[in-house]
Amino acid sequence: MSGPDLSYGVVSRDELLSQDGLTLLNRMIRGELPAPPIAELLGIRLTEAEHGRCVFTGLPSFKHYNPSSQVHGGFALSIMDSALGCAIHTTLAAGETYTTLEIKVNMVRGMSENTGEVRAEGHVLHRGRTTATADGKLTDADGRLLAHAVTTCMIFPAAKA
Amino acid sequence: MSGPDLSYGVVSRDELLSQDGLTLLNRMIRGELPAPPIAELLGIRLTEAEHGRCVFTGLPSFKHYNPSSQVHGGFALSIMDSALGCAIHTTLAAGETYTTLEIKVNMVRGMSENTGEVRAEGHVLHRGRTTATADGKLTDADGRLLAHAVTTCMIFPAAKA
Amino acid sequence: MSGPDLSYGVVSRDELLSQDGLTLLNRMIRGELPAPPIAELLGIRLTEAEHGRCVFTGLPSFKHYNPSSQVHGGFALSIMDSALGCAIHTTLAAGETYTTLEIKVNMVRGMSENTGEVRAEGHVLHRGRTTATADGKLTDADGRLLAHAVTTCMIFPAAKA
Amino acid sequence: MSGPDLSYGVVSRDELLSQDGLTLLNRMIRGELPAPPIAELLGIRLTEAEHGRCVFTGLPSFKHYNPSSQVHGGFALSIMDSALGCAIHTTLAAGETYTTLEIKVNMVRGMSENTGEVRAEGHVLHRGRTTATADGKLTDADGRLLAHAVTTCMIFPAAKA
Repeated sequence: MSGPDLSYGVVSRDELLSQDGLTLLNRMIRGELPAPPIAELLGIRLTEAEHGRCVFTGLPSFKHYNPSSQVHGGFALSIMDSALGCAIHTTLAAGETYTTLEIKVNMVRGMSENTGEVRAEGHVLHRGRTTATADGKLTDADGRLLAHAVTTCMIFPAAKA
Repeated sequence: MSGPDLSYGVVSRDELLSQDGLTLLNRMIRGELPAPPIAELLGIRLTEAEHGRCVFTGLPSFKHYNPSSQVHGGFALSIMDSALGCAIHTTLAAGETYTTLEIKVNMVRGMSENTGEVRAEGHVLHRGRTTATADGKLTDADGRLLAHAVTTCMIFPAAKA
Repeated sequence: MSGPDLSYGVVSRDELLSQDGLTLLNRMIRGELPAPPIAELLGIRLTEAEHGRCVFTGLPSFKHYNPSSQVHGGFALSIMDSALGCAIHTTLAAGETYTTLEIKVNMVRGMSENTGEVRAEGHVLHRGRTTATADGKLTDADGRLLAHAVTTCMIFPAAKA
Repeated sequence: MSGPDLSYGVVSRDELLSQDGLTLLNRMIRGELPAPPIAELLGIRLTEAEHGRCVFTGLPSFKHYNPSSQVHGGFALSIMDSALGCAIHTTLAAGETYTTLEIKVNMVRGMSENTGEVRAEGHVLHRGRTTATADGKLTDADGRLLAHAVTTCMIFPAAKA
């Protein structure tokens, strides 16, 4: 998870609505806008964004453990939700917003402290006027598949001036 | 999230396998076994367990926020994964283990710092010999539906002596 | 699948939009409007409708078989899609329409010619202004769970006059 | 849906278990084994199979219509269930069998009699010893995305001799 030093916080509504999604996300990657609190809490980071595609990286750690010394499913769920949602976010015009209606994640392989950095990559499958879908994969440094996911989001058009 | 003071940590494999799931989970609720690290990280807590049913509570907070000052989807996903998985865990005999194959969560209503404590309740729908399914709801203190979910788990039989 | 004799066909757009969903579905149940072609093809039938709830019945048959002499998953998927979609349809005001964004079905128990009549019951979980969700179960005459499902639909408001 | 003339029926258990999945499916494609009754009922056909990948084609027709003169969701669900399940079937060794635990389908674009032939292609995402997952897309002749899906299946090992 190398990259510029980040600060953490939220972004003003005006900042969110005044630029297109790809511009906003790239400013976060460069550290010009704060990364969200959830990213600090979970140890995940947005590292790549282009139209219709996003990548988050994260480091599975003891703090993510469930009782049986494995990483809790919530870690995979959260990083996949971020990657798939942000893939859709890259397609938003200035003023448009989105919300996740549902996400479905398959857990293929468990993670532990020894897994090392993981990479969640999301891609847009369908971008309509009011809905969008995306899917993606979570892999380790050797490219082994850890989880895969698909999401349905709703798009809200820019408010009329 | 009142209840006994908790310590956080993992449980030994021997402890996990030597008792049935409901006994184990009730000992966690009473604070006789540590709650998992993920529960401390996310601020969620197992509060009820009976055969085929589990409840987690949690407090949506600023630390869970996404850039737009809403609770990130990962919070709902994680607490639902806990509640549904543990509902299945309550059905395990001593020596049996389980893993989550997949979970699907619908996000119905957003959460913020003002939402207050939320409650995730999971119920077993099907318990077979090698697979199980569960569903559940996430609600606020007024009973408003925030999210609902369904999961498919795999059951591993106790190893032959 | 007792009930009034049915004819099969589609319903005019004017018929669809001029009455609320529950009225329309109850007229289908009474045979005052044709049942859809898919119902004839698959051997399924709408038998109950009230606000937020619908029931379809169907008879698993040889015509539904996959190569291994079991009923193909498409039968369970189709009857569940009907039951869950129609549960949401019962909540539509005159002029409103809906479409299914996604459905997820768990197959719990296989079916054959010997299963006898099955019953798919759908219930609305969430009804918002522009989206709705529903879940439901498929059971046999002994109440055994055969499948369960959850769906996300989009609601289109009535066109302004 | 050009190809050899097909007969329809089921396959004996001995036929199913005595050869690997890819061999079996390719014999169906060549018409050396009957296509299943559900394929005749719905008007769908297996046209391609290789290790980890399958294609079905189908023709949306009036017989698939719901009340509003659109193809019922069950058509997309059934052809996707076939394509994804058969993609996993291609990976089975002689004696192994599988069953679908769950499938989730996103409906992206409606179909009618005017859609023309559609193509459902499934790919294996994960093939473990006891579980497998696959995803796939349904497209029209112009490559437009109509639906996408993901499934979780369970693999049963060959019985010990």
